[in-house]
Amino acid sequence: MIKYPNGKLSKLNNSKKLSQNSNSNLHLANRGMGLENDLNFSNAKYLEQGRAVIYKRPTPIKIIKVDYSKGAKIIDAVFEKQSTTDYNGIYRGKYLDFEAKSTQNKTSFPFNNIGSHQINHLKAVIKQGGITFFIISFTTLDRIYLVDASLIIAMLEENKKSITETFLRDNCTLIVKKGLNFIDYLQAVDEQYF
Amino acid sequence: MIKYPNGKLSKLNNSKKLSQNSNSNLHLANRGMGLENDLNFSNAKYLEQGRAVIYKRPTPIKIIKVDYSKGAKIIDAVFEKQSTTDYNGIYRGKYLDFEAKSTQNKTSFPFNNIGSHQINHLKAVIKQGGITFFIISFTTLDRIYLVDASLIIAMLEENKKSITETFLRDNCTLIVKKGLNFIDYLQAVDEQYF
Repeated sequence: MIKYPNGKLSKLNNSKKLSQNSNSNLHLANRGMGLENDLNFSNAKYLEQGRAVIYKRPTPIKIIKVDYSKGAKIIDAVFEKQSTTDYNGIYRGKYLDFEAKSTQNKTSFPFNNIGSHQINHLKAVIKQGGITFFIISFTTLDRIYLVDASLIIAMLEENKKSITETFLRDNCTLIVKKGLNFIDYLQAVDEQYF
Repeated sequence: MIKYPNGKLSKLNNSKKLSQNSNSNLHLANRGMGLENDLNFSNAKYLEQGRAVIYKRPTPIKIIKVDYSKGAKIIDAVFEKQSTTDYNGIYRGKYLDFEAKSTQNKTSFPFNNIGSHQINHLKAVIKQGGITFFIISFTTLDRIYLVDASLIIAMLEENKKSITETFLRDNCTLIVKKGLNFIDYLQAVDEQYF
């Protein structure tokens, strides 16, 4: 994760490269990157298997200055807020759109993690007939759930501040981790939507 | 457009901001940006109308160094190659995936403009049941066509080097420009796929 100019946290595209550089704030870069890296790995596997075509959208960056003397090196730029969710693609003929979030909390997932722009985006996608969900990872519990976006949207509209892990366990689909980095979330998508 | 380290040209995310800065190579930044800007404008209009949810994927950027002393300023980064097409989204329940290209050529569109990674991506999407196409703009002629991706893929497999404007006129759908920046390509999608 990366600290935005406005003080908010957001996921970064190039974790690996970034974490190779020493920087006082780089401990931030690793928080939540496990889930993102695992999803990227899983999506690459799905693509290779011909099972789905799903990508993480690159983090938008506003470029201010490019130095062409050394072959298009960006020397001044800032992170921009993603106006959508992080992931989208196609699976079994259906448009998929989702956001992945981690929490170290053991009992519930707080909604202050979710941006209003993401909710607006998900609502627009639902209106078009897409499959929308959240992948919520409880890192301390090592449990990951697939949660239909409509459920979260409904709870937000009732001014709920969080969703408990107990509720997720009883009502949502647990995602099975197969091997070190492979989060087989499409199995949960099969169970829930097909 | 922006010059990549490998010498190839690719579209840039933040044309406006970039073109505000003086740089000897910035004449490159405007080439082909007209189509991209028009498509972004059109997609924003579609979103506002509730007609579709389609976005340009941000240009992937590899971040090398971030300066946190001034609030997460990127001070070293390079452009990366997009492994997919530039645009995707959902329309009338269907997954849409496409690439937009411009040419100043008056008689044909040369295929050397199309990357093999884009073709592989489009093939994978077709396999999943998505709608895939190219938007090809003949800037000098002020004519824009919607061309089904399968047609281009088939021609590439026959080692064809280009597609003539005459062929496109006779066999593909002309996209109607409505107003200054609104390219109503979904009307062409309706005609061709629904």
